[in-house]
Amino acid sequence: ENILGDQEAVVYRQIIVPQQSSMEFNTDCGLVVPSISLELRRRLYGAAEKCGLSDEKQLEVIGMCSSQMALQLLGGSSRLNPRNTHQMPSVVVLCGPHRQGAQGISCARHLANKGVNVTVFLPSFKKMLECLTLELQMFNMTDGVHTPIHTGLPTEHVDLIINTLDGQESAFLRDQAWYRSVVQWVAQNKAPVLAVDPPCNPPNYPIQPKWSLSPALPLALPEAAGTLYLCDMGIPSKVYAEVGIKYKSPFGHKCVIALHHINAS
Amino acid sequence: ENILGDQEAVVYRQIIVPQQSSMEFNTDCGLVVPSISLELRRRLYGAAEKCGLSDEKQLEVIGMCSSQMALQLLGGSSRLNPRNTHQMPSVVVLCGPHRQGAQGISCARHLANKGVNVTVFLPSFKKMLECLTLELQMFNMTDGVHTPIHTGLPTEHVDLIINTLDGQESAFLRDQAWYRSVVQWVAQNKAPVLAVDPPCNPPNYPIQPKWSLSPALPLALPEAAGTLYLCDMGIPSKVYAEVGIKYKSPFGHKCVIALHHINAS
Repeated sequence: ENILGDQEAVVYRQIIVPQQSSMEFNTDCGLVVPSISLELRRRLYGAAEKCGLSDEKQLEVIGMCSSQMALQLLGGSSRLNPRNTHQMPSVVVLCGPHRQGAQGISCARHLANKGVNVTVFLPSFKKMLECLTLELQMFNMTDGVHTPIHTGLPTEHVDLIINTLDGQESAFLRDQAWYRSVVQWVAQNKAPVLAVDPPCNPPNYPIQPKWSLSPALPLALPEAAGTLYLCDMGIPSKVYAEVGIKYKSPFGHKCVIALHHINAS
Repeated sequence: ENILGDQEAVVYRQIIVPQQSSMEFNTDCGLVVPSISLELRRRLYGAAEKCGLSDEKQLEVIGMCSSQMALQLLGGSSRLNPRNTHQMPSVVVLCGPHRQGAQGISCARHLANKGVNVTVFLPSFKKMLECLTLELQMFNMTDGVHTPIHTGLPTEHVDLIINTLDGQESAFLRDQAWYRSVVQWVAQNKAPVLAVDPPCNPPNYPIQPKWSLSPALPLALPEAAGTLYLCDMGIPSKVYAEVGIKYKSPFGHKCVIALHHINAS
């Protein structure tokens, strides 16, 4: 009788999604985190916004969490000594013209506030999403640099590249000249890449991430997304319930946790 | 010739305020953090809001930072095991009818999202600030409990009390019956108190904090405020410059740092 096994299964599955997940992940604690579809995520974000967790608030949370993760990747306290600001790390944040890009700029602002040397790449468009304009306006109040053209990117090696060039539905951007020149710049620079909220649809990425950070619940990300992390968007459990998800935080006391692919058995 | 001493003095004073500070603090790294007046802080927040860091965003940042500090005080990973949610810590957040109270509710939501057992005390008023209503609406989507009366507060011992009953200009609230009954409840409960953004005017506090957390730059807090901490509000350096403050982040890679009173010499 596999009674103990069943009990354990219950304990480890604290997040139940309405449809069969196409992918499942484990946390370091052994909890199971299922993937959700893009459509379910959209409904989750919509419900969060309806309850008051506005787009603005969501961008602030993901900006803070992703900057905290980037600071760890950069070496944390050993690299960011507030008494020695001569050798601060340098980071390039690549931003596309969509919500994902706004998340990148928010992350860039939090990094620049901490004294990191930050360059934001965001191409100019006639019509910009309001959230992009607002985030850029705030970023421009830091000591960071904004460049709309790839020739404004640093020629020397940088410590970390944060990639938010790809939106969830903007694969068409990849054909544009500015996109291709940035891909070339990344290949030449050779710095490791952290993708923030990368899309789940492509089997591969023009810019190969070493790490990927997903908000709330992960999409079904391919192996090409690199080592996966999940960040707490601060969405209350009853908001998850509204879209049919039974949710119990897998984060413990942390804001960002590692996820591991569970191999199909 | 005290040349080295002068150089060091320059390095350690990275934050310069326009008026003589009535109080100065040291970080663990030895950096000097000067206090600012309530009036200068108001202008700083106003400039932040003007550049896009809305009240909503500010509340989200302080809610996240203060919840992170509270999670550390509660014992961090040793107390918040996502696989054993039977013995989660319990926290009471006391909120007054003002912006400080809204900061408390934001903190309460982030704690409840992490699985902490949270009770929010917020008295009912006919006219509520919009930010309070919004934060309460979001908190009510967690598994936390909201009580408008002191008799709804837990009778058993709690692990931590977070106090945001006092606004920066609401000393008059202390005479009200609900305030006095809550002070009595705190005295009976005996749990340690974290004050979030306590006022600087009183020489003493009806509810004695063990720790106090200030946002951005500290007010001139009395010794009665307990052990002091500062949290990063994510305000860009050029916003500080707009109100005459020369600012360089004292935070290193952290969001919350300890401050120590410098004795007048």
